[in-house]
Formats: sequence, structure tokens, C-alpha cells
Amino acid sequence: MSSPKENPVILAEQVQTTLAILEPLTRKVFLSLTAPSPLDNRADVDQVRQMLERSCDFVKVPLALMRKIPGICREAHWQVTAILAESNNGWDLIDIEPGDTTQKQFGLAIDIGTTTVVVYLVDLCNGKVLSHAADYNDQIILGEDILNRIRHAAEPGGLARLQNAVVETLNRLINRLCPLPRDAEKITAAAIGANTTMIHLLLGLDPASICRAPYTPIVNNPGLIPAGEIGLDIHPLAPVYCLPSIGSYLGGDVIGGILVSGMHKQPDVSLFVDIGTNGEIVMGNEEWLVACAGAAGPALEGGVTSFGMRAEPGAVDHVSIDPKTGQVHYTTVADMPARGICGSGLVDTLAELFLDGIIDRNAHFQKGREEYVVVPAQETASGEDIVVTQIDINNFMATKGAVNAATDLLMENVGCAWQEMKHFYAAGAFGQYLPIESAITIGLYPDLPRSAIVRLGNSSGEAARQVLLSRPKRLEAEAIAAKVTYFELNANNAFMEKFSGSKFLPHTDLARYPSVKRR
Amino acid sequence: MSSPKENPVILAEQVQTTLAILEPLTRKVFLSLTAPSPLDNRADVDQVRQMLERSCDFVKVPLALMRKIPGICREAHWQVTAILAESNNGWDLIDIEPGDTTQKQFGLAIDIGTTTVVVYLVDLCNGKVLSHAADYNDQIILGEDILNRIRHAAEPGGLARLQNAVVETLNRLINRLCPLPRDAEKITAAAIGANTTMIHLLLGLDPASICRAPYTPIVNNPGLIPAGEIGLDIHPLAPVYCLPSIGSYLGGDVIGGILVSGMHKQPDVSLFVDIGTNGEIVMGNEEWLVACAGAAGPALEGGVTSFGMRAEPGAVDHVSIDPKTGQVHYTTVADMPARGICGSGLVDTLAELFLDGIIDRNAHFQKGREEYVVVPAQETASGEDIVVTQIDINNFMATKGAVNAATDLLMENVGCAWQEMKHFYAAGAFGQYLPIESAITIGLYPDLPRSAIVRLGNSSGEAARQVLLSRPKRLEAEAIAAKVTYFELNANNAFMEKFSGSKFLPHTDLARYPSVKRR
Repeated sequence: MSSPKENPVILAEQVQTTLAILEPLTRKVFLSLTAPSPLDNRADVDQVRQMLERSCDFVKVPLALMRKIPGICREAHWQVTAILAESNNGWDLIDIEPGDTTQKQFGLAIDIGTTTVVVYLVDLCNGKVLSHAADYNDQIILGEDILNRIRHAAEPGGLARLQNAVVETLNRLINRLCPLPRDAEKITAAAIGANTTMIHLLLGLDPASICRAPYTPIVNNPGLIPAGEIGLDIHPLAPVYCLPSIGSYLGGDVIGGILVSGMHKQPDVSLFVDIGTNGEIVMGNEEWLVACAGAAGPALEGGVTSFGMRAEPGAVDHVSIDPKTGQVHYTTVADMPARGICGSGLVDTLAELFLDGIIDRNAHFQKGREEYVVVPAQETASGEDIVVTQIDINNFMATKGAVNAATDLLMENVGCAWQEMKHFYAAGAFGQYLPIESAITIGLYPDLPRSAIVRLGNSSGEAARQVLLSRPKRLEAEAIAAKVTYFELNANNAFMEKFSGSKFLPHTDLARYPSVKRR
Repeated sequence: MSSPKENPVILAEQVQTTLAILEPLTRKVFLSLTAPSPLDNRADVDQVRQMLERSCDFVKVPLALMRKIPGICREAHWQVTAILAESNNGWDLIDIEPGDTTQKQFGLAIDIGTTTVVVYLVDLCNGKVLSHAADYNDQIILGEDILNRIRHAAEPGGLARLQNAVVETLNRLINRLCPLPRDAEKITAAAIGANTTMIHLLLGLDPASICRAPYTPIVNNPGLIPAGEIGLDIHPLAPVYCLPSIGSYLGGDVIGGILVSGMHKQPDVSLFVDIGTNGEIVMGNEEWLVACAGAAGPALEGGVTSFGMRAEPGAVDHVSIDPKTGQVHYTTVADMPARGICGSGLVDTLAELFLDGIIDRNAHFQKGREEYVVVPAQETASGEDIVVTQIDINNFMATKGAVNAATDLLMENVGCAWQEMKHFYAAGAFGQYLPIESAITIGLYPDLPRSAIVRLGNSSGEAARQVLLSRPKRLEAEAIAAKVTYFELNANNAFMEKFSGSKFLPHTDLARYPSVKRR
């Protein structure tokens, strides 16, 4: 819950996998052609295609490039670089450049969150992230959450406004990474991780059916789309690949998370959790994958708590309470005077309140207390106490309860016990900033050996980077999408039962939290 | 040389081959889809693609169609017809229609001549020509022949003007075949036979290099181009296939002629000749093919002879001279009063003049005669004598001489004797309207058994129909293009020698014309 402008979300170092073989969406091929002569009077375009087809099958040359090839070839003394994009089962020539430019190949890995958009500039020659930029999704002003955006899309002109908003956000970030349009034109590929609604809005597809039974999106796997058709300010023929989704509530961001975690290739059972405005839970191993999703509530996004805020300067991000003195120790983002509490600060606070017995296992304040002062008025920016109230705690417990209930239900349905869960993957901001021990204390993370808990960081962005760079990874993502069984929570009465029973700290069944029990 | 407006060039019945298997450039697939339900909540686009991929590999759905699919599917109660176009090694979905429309599939076979353009409307379900329309190429006013058009293309705005002219000609003909735009939109594929310059001008490719050493076109095989990029008023995503050319002077029209003749599949050696404003000669069999080309002069196109005209009403099209009385018998197109002489009338006249000894073997009038009255003043529309002059005869002899010289040179170079020539294919108007016996008498056609002489009619249009309908035929055309060895006449001194020696009737070597010798 970092402020994207101040402290952009970056790919967690530990998960930025080095790919064995780079097979990006676009490839460059240097061609040393022969000037036409009476002995070799092949047509220019034919010669280019013949040279390319030595290494690439089925190369298509669009008309616009036929017009461009003769000039470039002569100007560059027949030393040119062709840029090819994957298409159907072959390749499309998307551009031709003078000289040998094969060492300059750039692509974008994009994570479009409902709240935050991150764009990574990737060197397609070595797979490295060269720079990144992040910002809030401009769609926020048209609708805070997914449901409101779908509603807005149904208004006259609404879909176009939402599409423009996200395209403008992306173009602003692209412009920040490549201020010169001629540099941005050199970006020849992009891959996107996002939830299903975000992809629909980006592509200008009506999202109405997403939130209406039987909840079918228009498309789960849009394939490759030329950037120009979307309106991205990169090479207009650059192919844009969206990580495939599974349905209305399980998007490419989650498929990307699974891909990055590797849980789909392990014999052991893993649990994958991503909590943002929505929560998604995936469980499984190399043989099976089940998933569920639902509105998690914005408890962790700083939207509901009285003093909740994003992790911008002045946000309380770490809290501890001295068990002897009751003294609160806290830190703030950028060491600025406290203005509010962000998600990690809230999780810390709740964990400390629980461990110190200030709230009980039902998450209620003891002794009729109504709130807890985290930062006293004299230390805050506003001169007011920064507090956590019982209502704040209840809101948080609803989110936690939903996650616990959904997890329990998935386990029950696949007949899998907690003891079999060998890895826990925490994705998104939920997996990047939350303090592990506190998250376990209040039952948000499971009480597994700490080495089994992996925080994936921005796995949606990292997955976008991987599929941008690797055809096998794209096929892997599509295979994951085909493999996941979606489990509908809303249609399930058992969920509400579990949900009501999950509002304990850390969990209804304390035996599952031995390390917390000890403390 | 029929007037295209009055009497359109049609495909010669004998060569309108029935293709064993129809594999048109576009195919329709009827889909009986399933309305989404909780049990099958696949995304609309994914379901369409999955259904299509049961019968077609690698189906790409463009963004515009993703937007269209949900509405059409619901409106048509999930009974829809998909239209797929070949692309790279897969298929592009180019449209979707409500209901089962698989029995309505239309394409265009197009012959773009320097002078005349013919469009055939083809039923893709059975391969039949439903109707056709022909007209002069609007480019004529920008330049009478190829060289003048290439010059015009070099002027500012010239290329665009030439492109517009031919596109407008085509659209006018399309409009004549399908007056309603919504019907024209149902035309989902087109194939074109044309010379290399015509293809360049149609595609807006600069033809400058075609007439400049080393005479390399920009492209010989443009592949599939969406009709909308060319500006044709049919379905904008309809793939347009141009018969491949071999070089600047051997176009797709000639490759098409070879394809239609079948000479490339026979063990015997054949000779293929197409004479229009340019002349092309191909010789060969299943193992080898050699070809040459050059300006033939417009002798047969009615452009040079004093009273030359196209085969419009009033053109003298057949002539005989009674050897006893010297009386001329003639017919005119549409039985109108004579206005001039078209190509077939000229060939008849020359043959009769030669057989009656009015001109000698050198094609000179005997006894100081300067001209011959074909139609006396009192029978003509203008009240003037219609005559053939010595200059007219000389012009014709230049064309005939060039054809004979080129043929001889080809034979000499491949070490092939006249006796080995088992088939003669006459293509284009040259092969459709000329009277066979007269053409042999004056040495324009070889003196072979009459059964060995095949007039291919508009083989360029027929070849376009075949490649429109059949993928194997497209591959066959491309294999022919790869196989032909082009023989450069202009660079060859021997040609001029042969040329000078060929100006005899019917040929320098009378032994080659036994049937004429007998007469």
C-alpha cells in the first residue's frame, strides 16, 4: 500500500526469475541483404521475406511495410533489422530499421490494478527491468471499486470514458519511462496482468455480463492485439498479450500469481492468497488447482478504517506495544508526522493489541474500551489522536473472516487438511508489505514454518514480465487457466456459516496457530 | 478485343475447370453455441474460438469482433456463422453473422489488364461464376501503356492518382455486380491476376524500379492483404490474393496462364503466348519452364492501324477475299455499318491478302500498290474507304516478328526444336478472338495440328478464380513462379538479329508452316 508516485511497487527481487530461454513476443532479426543486380533481381520484399523465413516460419508482410522496405533498404545499404511479432502460428513483420539494432529491444510488463497501475520497461535482450513507473488508475474517479466501474460502464459513454482513463494512465506512465515519442515507438511488445474487469475496460469490451449471472466475461484469453488498436503510445503494431483469466472473478493477475509461485508444478499442496479490494484464494499442486474469489472489503487498502490511508508519507506503517509499559512504538512512511494508518500499521496494531490482551479472541476491546490511541494528538500532523476503533477492528475482521472461511471451504471441498498445506504464497500488496509475524498473529497468514511463507510481491507484474519474454511461459499460463476449477462462493450457504465462525483471532481453531498460542 | 462494356470478356468455357476440392481463401463455419449457464460459463469469445478450433488451427479473433460477438450471439440465439480468412499458418475470424449462412459465400476473381478490367462474382460454395462485369481501366487517361503509367507514377501525386483510378474502376464493377453495399459486404475474398505494374499500382507501391535496371519489382508475391487496406468496396477484412509474379515483365497474369494451361504438369514441351500491349512467351514442361517478355506493340489492340479500333459495334471482325473474283466478304460487330478494323479483322485481312498474292512473303504489296480497300466508302459509317496500308502491315509485322524472334531465341537457348513443341496455348484476347487459320497463315500461331492449339481465353481471370477457390492451386501458382527461368531479351543482341529475320510471312523458315505452304 505504498503510494505509487512516491515509492513505486517494484518486483520483489526474490521472484524476478531469470528465464532460461528468451522468446519474447517480438524478435529482431538482422538481415544483410543483397543489392539487386542482373544476377539476383529478386523483389525487395520477397528477398526480405525469404531471408526471414530461414529462421521464422510463415512471415506476413503488411502492405504498409511493403511501401517502406525499398527506401529503408537502399538508405541503409541493404543492412537492416526486421522486427517480427508472433501471430497465429507464424510471424508478422511489424517494422524494419536501418542497420543492426538487434541489441535494442524493449517491451512493457504492465500490472493494471483496480487502484494502482505499474508499468515496467523491460530489456527484451536480457529480460531485465530497466525502469518502472506507477500511478493510481485514473478510473478511480469514475468508480472506486470494480462494481462501481461496471455500473459506470453501463452509462452512456461510460465504457469509452473508462477505457480512455486507463489508456491515459498507461500512456502517462509510458511517457514517464520514455519521454521521447520516438523512443516509445521502439517499444515493440507488451504483456498485461490484470483482473478480468480491468482487461475488459482496457479493450473497450462491455463488462456488464461480468457481474450478472451466470457471470461470463466476453473473453478470457484475448490473444495478441496490436497496441494501436488499444491506443497505447508504443509501436502501433506491437503485440499486446493479456494474461488469460478464468472467469469474471479470477483474472489474469491471479493466473500470473500462480505462474510466478510455481505451485502448479509442485507435488505438495500450496495455498495462494491475494487480497486487495477483492480477494482471491487458490489451492492446489501439480495435479489440481481450485480457486475462489470474492469482495474482500477494502480493510487492507486504507479505505474504511477511521484513520486508514494508503502508505503515503505520514502513514503509520509499523507499530509495537511494549508489553510491560504499554508504550506504543511506531514508524511512519518517510518519517513524516503521522497522518493515519496504512495496512501494515493496522495489522501490526491489531496483533499487538491481541498479544497484550487489550482485545480478546473475539477481537473486542476489554473493559468497555471503545478505541485505542496509536499516536497521541501532540505527535500527529493534524493535532488529533490517531486511533483504532472497535468499528475499524470489526471491518478488518470481516475481511479476515472471509479469507479464512473461503480457505476452509476450499479445503473441505477438496478434502484437504491444514497439515497438508506446505507452502503459502502471499501475492500483491498483501504479500509485499504486511509484517509476517503480525499477519500470522491475527490469522491473516497461516501459522506455517516461516520458510514456507513466500511473499510474491507484485506477481501480476512479474508474470507479465515472464510472458512478455517467454513463449513457454505464455503456454504455461494458458495451461494453468485451463486447469483451475473455480468454486463459486456466493452460491454456497456453507460459506456464510464458515464466515460467521471465522471471526476469531487468530482463528476459530486455535490448534492451527501453535506459534501464536505459545505467545 | 471486344468492348468490355458491350460484350464482356468471359472465361472460356473449355478452361473453366471444375476444381475437385474447394478450399477458398475464406470459409464459413456454422456454430451452434451454448447459452452461458452456471454449468458452462465460458466467455463468449472463448467459446466461439474453441468451437472453431475443432476444425481450424490457430484462430485469431480481432478486437473489433470481440466487441461484436456477444450481441450477435444473443440476438441469434447462439446460432451463428463464423467467417474465417486464411492468415499466416492459421485463420483470422473476419466476421460473424446470425444464423446459418454457410450456403452464401461469395468471392471475386479479378483480371486487371492494362487496358481492360474484368470482375467475376464467384459462388465460393460451388466455384461457379455467377456474373461478371468489365470495363476499361480508368488509368488509361493517365497513361496509355505501362511505361507511360510508370512515368505518371513518378509525378507528384501520380501514384495515388493511378491507384485511385484502378480502385475506382474495380469499385464501379463491384457496384454493378452488387448494387447494394450490404451485398457487396458479403463478398469475403478476392483473387487478382494482373501484370506486375498493375499490382504495384493497385497496392500503391512505387513502380519506378520496374523499368530501371536491374528491373526489380518491390514485391512479386504480396501474400494476403485485407480489402479495406486497398480500398475495395467489399468486406474490409476480406483477404485479397494476387497471383505471384516472377519479375518486372512477367506478372501474375502469365503465371495464371501457365496454371490454367497445365503445361507445367505435362511431359511434352508446350509453348504459351500472350500478346496484348506487351507480349509474353513461356516454353516448357513438367521439368522446366523458360519465359521472356517485351513490348509487343499495340498492333493487335487496334491502336496503330489507320482504321484500327477495338471490337466495338461497327468493327470489321471477319474478312475473306474470294480468290476468283477478288470480292471482299466481311462481318462487323453487332452488324453495324463498318467504322474500322479490330484485331481479328486485321489478322483475317492479312492472311487473305497473302494467300491471294496481293502481298508477298515480305508482306509488301505487289505492283506498287499502297493500300487495300477492305470496305468501300459507300458501305462505311463515315462514307470513307476503310483500308489497310503498307504502314499498317509493317506495324503488324513488327509485332509478329518480335513474337517469332523471341520464340526462336527461347528454343535455341534451351536446345529445343520446333518438332518437339506439342501444345500451343494462346492466352488473353490474343487467344480468345483471333481466327485460328488466319493466325497460322500469317505466322502468328504455329502450324501445329489444330487439336494442339488451345485458346485459353481470359486465363488471367480464370486463374484468379482457381486460386480464389483452391489452396492447392495457390501453392501450384507459387511453385510455377519459383520454377520459371526468365530470359532477358533486351540484353540480348541475338534477339535483334532474329527479329530482323522474322519479318516474313508466315515465317523465315517456311518448312515450319507446311499447311500454309500447301495452300
